[in-house]
Amino acid sequence: MTSRERPSEDGLIARFFAPLAGEGAFGLKDDAACLSPRPGHDLVLTTDALVESVHFLPEDSPASIARKALGVNVSDLAAKGADPTGFLLSLALPESWTEAWLAGFAAGLGEASREFSCPLLGGDTVKAKGALSLSVTAVGEVPAGKMVHRMNARMGDIICVTGTIGDAALGLRLRTAPSWAENLSADEKAHLADRYLHPRPRYRLARAVREHAHAAMDVSDGLAGDLTKMMRVSGVSALVEGERVPFSTAVSKAVAVDPNLFDLAVTGGDDYEILCTVPDKNLDSFMKEADSVGIMVSAIGRVVAGHELPVFRIDGTERRYDAGSFSHF
Amino acid sequence: MTSRERPSEDGLIARFFAPLAGEGAFGLKDDAACLSPRPGHDLVLTTDALVESVHFLPEDSPASIARKALGVNVSDLAAKGADPTGFLLSLALPESWTEAWLAGFAAGLGEASREFSCPLLGGDTVKAKGALSLSVTAVGEVPAGKMVHRMNARMGDIICVTGTIGDAALGLRLRTAPSWAENLSADEKAHLADRYLHPRPRYRLARAVREHAHAAMDVSDGLAGDLTKMMRVSGVSALVEGERVPFSTAVSKAVAVDPNLFDLAVTGGDDYEILCTVPDKNLDSFMKEADSVGIMVSAIGRVVAGHELPVFRIDGTERRYDAGSFSHF
Repeated sequence: MTSRERPSEDGLIARFFAPLAGEGAFGLKDDAACLSPRPGHDLVLTTDALVESVHFLPEDSPASIARKALGVNVSDLAAKGADPTGFLLSLALPESWTEAWLAGFAAGLGEASREFSCPLLGGDTVKAKGALSLSVTAVGEVPAGKMVHRMNARMGDIICVTGTIGDAALGLRLRTAPSWAENLSADEKAHLADRYLHPRPRYRLARAVREHAHAAMDVSDGLAGDLTKMMRVSGVSALVEGERVPFSTAVSKAVAVDPNLFDLAVTGGDDYEILCTVPDKNLDSFMKEADSVGIMVSAIGRVVAGHELPVFRIDGTERRYDAGSFSHF
Repeated sequence: MTSRERPSEDGLIARFFAPLAGEGAFGLKDDAACLSPRPGHDLVLTTDALVESVHFLPEDSPASIARKALGVNVSDLAAKGADPTGFLLSLALPESWTEAWLAGFAAGLGEASREFSCPLLGGDTVKAKGALSLSVTAVGEVPAGKMVHRMNARMGDIICVTGTIGDAALGLRLRTAPSWAENLSADEKAHLADRYLHPRPRYRLARAVREHAHAAMDVSDGLAGDLTKMMRVSGVSALVEGERVPFSTAVSKAVAVDPNLFDLAVTGGDDYEILCTVPDKNLDSFMKEADSVGIMVSAIGRVVAGHELPVFRIDGTERRYDAGSFSHF
């Protein structure tokens, strides 16, 4: 198919994106979306951009790219205690796009959108001059005044993290320098690869986060770096028990073979887990609510006084990680 | 300066963007913004992306690029009858960015943001793989139920357009193939060039649009093409008196020299004027309110029955323009 036979922007919207449109999007036939938050609720807005070869690899499937673009934004909403309302998409397509690519992208986007209850509200499609890039703005809702901030960690809070840490970083490393992975099973390798490709935003935990956490953010730039950012803006520090950092079987095996991979696991990006601090009195309820929505939460340490970098105690040593050891920028 | 000496993403945000942050943006130190629309109001959301060499030229100043990115989005809000609340910015910077470039960008963005009363709510900065690109999501407010739609033009409505048409298209042509412009004065050329570089979003007209227009959209892809889109989704057609299409002195002179430039003026993009349809009974009030905020409005034709392409009557001929004659995609 030549590019001359490809649909116009309007044709493309009608065919691929209009089926994903939610309430207030007017079937994507208007120039803007219209939202009325429920009475007594605030809207939470966040935006994250993804660029080929920075946030995903050129060979990744269009469905995976779409899912990741929406997932990383829904992850931000969840960490703020917000339930998804919808999203807007800016898509910069390189010259070489095909209808098959776009059909796969829209299918992946639709599936993720339905799973996260986060419909499409609007967007823009433009020509890229260079690699594919896309930007999502996600909108969510919280009861008024209940958005959970990054800067509100308090001394004595328990530091909690959802799911497992380091899978995505090792999943990416698996694709670029896999020598350390010889003792992993095919299933374990597949798990790591999938965690890099497909963030699992913890949207089901939004309510528990807003009811029980003092501070929260999602872990996108590595646990150590993001914890440092949270402690710094809160004016405190942290003590983390390294052996409590939740690792999947695959990461545990990898770290057992090469202990240096511990550092990669806690500094690598793309976890899209929720990091939060919870006061002692709320911990049981928080854990129970997390359990009731099927999300594992691990208490990994405590907020302490001070302005130093957080400490990770591991095998009798204390490690500190420079902030910014990983960045998508 | 080498790239190693450039600030981190957080440093860059603190230095260049935090000063532009509005209420609910938490000084850009959190992961999301929080908005509470005024009681009895809806939020209007729109997103538009800009790519170097597609929406602006590589030699354009960073301040102009910033102003355009925000301006085209505020233009969309105005056409929906919405007053700006704020915006989110995704910025994909090529390897070659410098602090001087970013300082210019932030200065232009700040100036436009203050002029349009549209503060920064959040954003994301990433590495581009290729040319500079940026995406803005703008948020505005309308009294509940008052967003003005594209698809609501009714037979008999007067077709109105703000400002002047074709300046930006000729401004762009001036930079690529200027032979037709020999009889223009330096001031006239500067006017055209400026209109391409610097959209003038008609945000002051938002209230009049929502109070008096049946249908509205902003003219970004050419008057003829955008009118066609509006008529098509409204299930009607239009008859436009070509000599009533408002031209600046510069465009009038250009068209006098080369009548074919009329077609370029009404099909070229980047006008960022408001196109709307107003019932006869509202026309006087609409014109008066536009006048009171210093915005020229021209009645250029009428909505008629039918499903054909709109007709432009000019010099005794009737011209129709294929939809999609201009597109940024």
